[in-house]
Amino acid sequence: MKIYCSKSDLNRSLSHASHAVPTRTTTKILECILVDIKDQMMYLTATDTNITIETALNVTAEGDCTFAVPSKLFSSIISKLPESEIMLDFDSMKSKLKIKSGRSVSEIVCFEGDEFPKIRTKEPEIRVSMNKESVKRMIRKTAFSASADEINGILTGVLFEFGEGNIRMVAVDAFRMAINNEPAEGMDQSFNVVIPAKMLTEVSKIISDDGDETLQMEIADKKAILIFDNCKVTVNTLSGKYIDYKRIISAETPTKIRVKREDLIASIDRASLLASATNNNMIKFNIEEDTIHISSLSDEGNIDESVEVIHEGNDFQIGFNARYLMDIFRNIDDEEIMLNMKDSISPCIVRPLSGERYQYLVLPIRIN
Amino acid sequence: MKIYCSKSDLNRSLSHASHAVPTRTTTKILECILVDIKDQMMYLTATDTNITIETALNVTAEGDCTFAVPSKLFSSIISKLPESEIMLDFDSMKSKLKIKSGRSVSEIVCFEGDEFPKIRTKEPEIRVSMNKESVKRMIRKTAFSASADEINGILTGVLFEFGEGNIRMVAVDAFRMAINNEPAEGMDQSFNVVIPAKMLTEVSKIISDDGDETLQMEIADKKAILIFDNCKVTVNTLSGKYIDYKRIISAETPTKIRVKREDLIASIDRASLLASATNNNMIKFNIEEDTIHISSLSDEGNIDESVEVIHEGNDFQIGFNARYLMDIFRNIDDEEIMLNMKDSISPCIVRPLSGERYQYLVLPIRIN
Repeated sequence: MKIYCSKSDLNRSLSHASHAVPTRTTTKILECILVDIKDQMMYLTATDTNITIETALNVTAEGDCTFAVPSKLFSSIISKLPESEIMLDFDSMKSKLKIKSGRSVSEIVCFEGDEFPKIRTKEPEIRVSMNKESVKRMIRKTAFSASADEINGILTGVLFEFGEGNIRMVAVDAFRMAINNEPAEGMDQSFNVVIPAKMLTEVSKIISDDGDETLQMEIADKKAILIFDNCKVTVNTLSGKYIDYKRIISAETPTKIRVKREDLIASIDRASLLASATNNNMIKFNIEEDTIHISSLSDEGNIDESVEVIHEGNDFQIGFNARYLMDIFRNIDDEEIMLNMKDSISPCIVRPLSGERYQYLVLPIRIN
Repeated sequence: MKIYCSKSDLNRSLSHASHAVPTRTTTKILECILVDIKDQMMYLTATDTNITIETALNVTAEGDCTFAVPSKLFSSIISKLPESEIMLDFDSMKSKLKIKSGRSVSEIVCFEGDEFPKIRTKEPEIRVSMNKESVKRMIRKTAFSASADEINGILTGVLFEFGEGNIRMVAVDAFRMAINNEPAEGMDQSFNVVIPAKMLTEVSKIISDDGDETLQMEIADKKAILIFDNCKVTVNTLSGKYIDYKRIISAETPTKIRVKREDLIASIDRASLLASATNNNMIKFNIEEDTIHISSLSDEGNIDESVEVIHEGNDFQIGFNARYLMDIFRNIDDEEIMLNMKDSISPCIVRPLSGERYQYLVLPIRIN
């Protein structure tokens, strides 16, 4: 059965779907992409059983058919073909897919479509529309703070809090927290869902800057379904009670330090050259009048940086993991930020100069 | 003692010299760069004892001094400083180097300059001038063909043959050979030297596209010294008798195939997707009238490519290691090339349509 499609469409759809193909598996069928031809559309599905990505493209086909084709080989061949029309020819008797373009002819041994795991989703209980760009931005600004350790269960996820006219994402691990808020026009439902951060990061990679303006989310039977552009991503949500994060950020922070973000990044970047992994990448902040002295020390030498700030409150010393600070400052876009602190053993809370668009919290390291 | 210099000058000189710092060593002093301040110049030297790179830059200094500073830390700090003047301050009593720029102050623990290995070179026996760009180009087009296995001694090197008005570089391993010729204006000496390919590749990385037009080579006491821009690179040459390569390329090749290089690259690139490392990356050429059929086969499927050619001579089948062919074709710049062959067990020699600028030879793989 012959199928005609554009190389660039197929290439893009394959590269999107491939994000769900497991990198390590002993199950041959999971290394495949399910190809489903139906009513002049091609649906490509890949899954590692935790995340399923389905993409769709227009094709010209002689009929309908379904087969599973090894993802890596199929994607590599398509990506290396010239930009023009491709003819696919699936021989269901031999279970082989022929790929023809110009003077190039390939044949790939396929698997039965039936062998591919079925992704069943029920009728959605909840359905919301969000701005696609703002979802992508919020994932970038929060997901890095979720726990990377599977043992931490629900904390490996990002909490989505939908409220009236507002979306909030929260991610927490043992040493830090990220909160981002964005206004959401027309949002009239209140509900929460926790989605694994690792999967959100994969999703953000396939959210293109063009295409649809909105991203639709459906919740059905402990699954979240994200629909945007020509993609449909299904992920298992995380169950359980999320940490009471509001209690953590309600701490009193009498010391306020207003600082240029780029100055802080440049100084921490240099100071961290002598921060060692064996000492939690520790750098020291010495807060004095209108200056933060940032320093690090090792057998090889020492680095002392001073950053001009506008400072209100106490003078004190405090130690931080340089990497945690950099993660935060690099994911903020504001020119100036406010560091809110209390003393050398209390967390530092990073906020914008005004408003509540974001809050980041990082725990200090005890200085010996 | 204070030294003032520009960040960008120091950064460039450090990054050039760093190419000679060994990646793995248990000798602390070899992880250092020797800094020698003399007559308002700073000379930076790094060595792994096989290759030594010395670079120079103008500075403003209060006097002369010498010390060795850990390369990685020094380079990292300098590269992360803003683009402006840097003040270095060497304290010989404490053996510490202070680096100051704006509000950043670092101190690095240094070693005595005396501990750094001395590079002694005698008065050169030979001195030649070459076009810098053409040396860089010829290294790129030959060095990849040298043997990567130290056990092969002189074949890990590139042979430089200097003749009247001409330079030739030759590299050979067990399966392939590369020869490149370029005219050299004013070349009036005839001599040969063999320089390790790995070191030439490092040298080519620091040959900039601007700066000096010429590169000077000196030979002194089994060392080759390459002088260009503000760099002086000293490498140990390889001794022994180089292989009689002219005998190998004098083979009779009655079959001539004229082909577009890009067509060949695209087809081999796709066909190699099914070529497996366990079978020497073998792809099959089936030469028939005005077409080369390029194919590969595995349990996963098969790929068949056909490339249009102008063909004179016999029809036959021949197997090649796809990687060896790609190395050659990607390093040629011509739009069309000529493949010169005899039969399925004789080497393929790649030449330009006219002239003798290059010759590449690759041995076939027996087809089972």
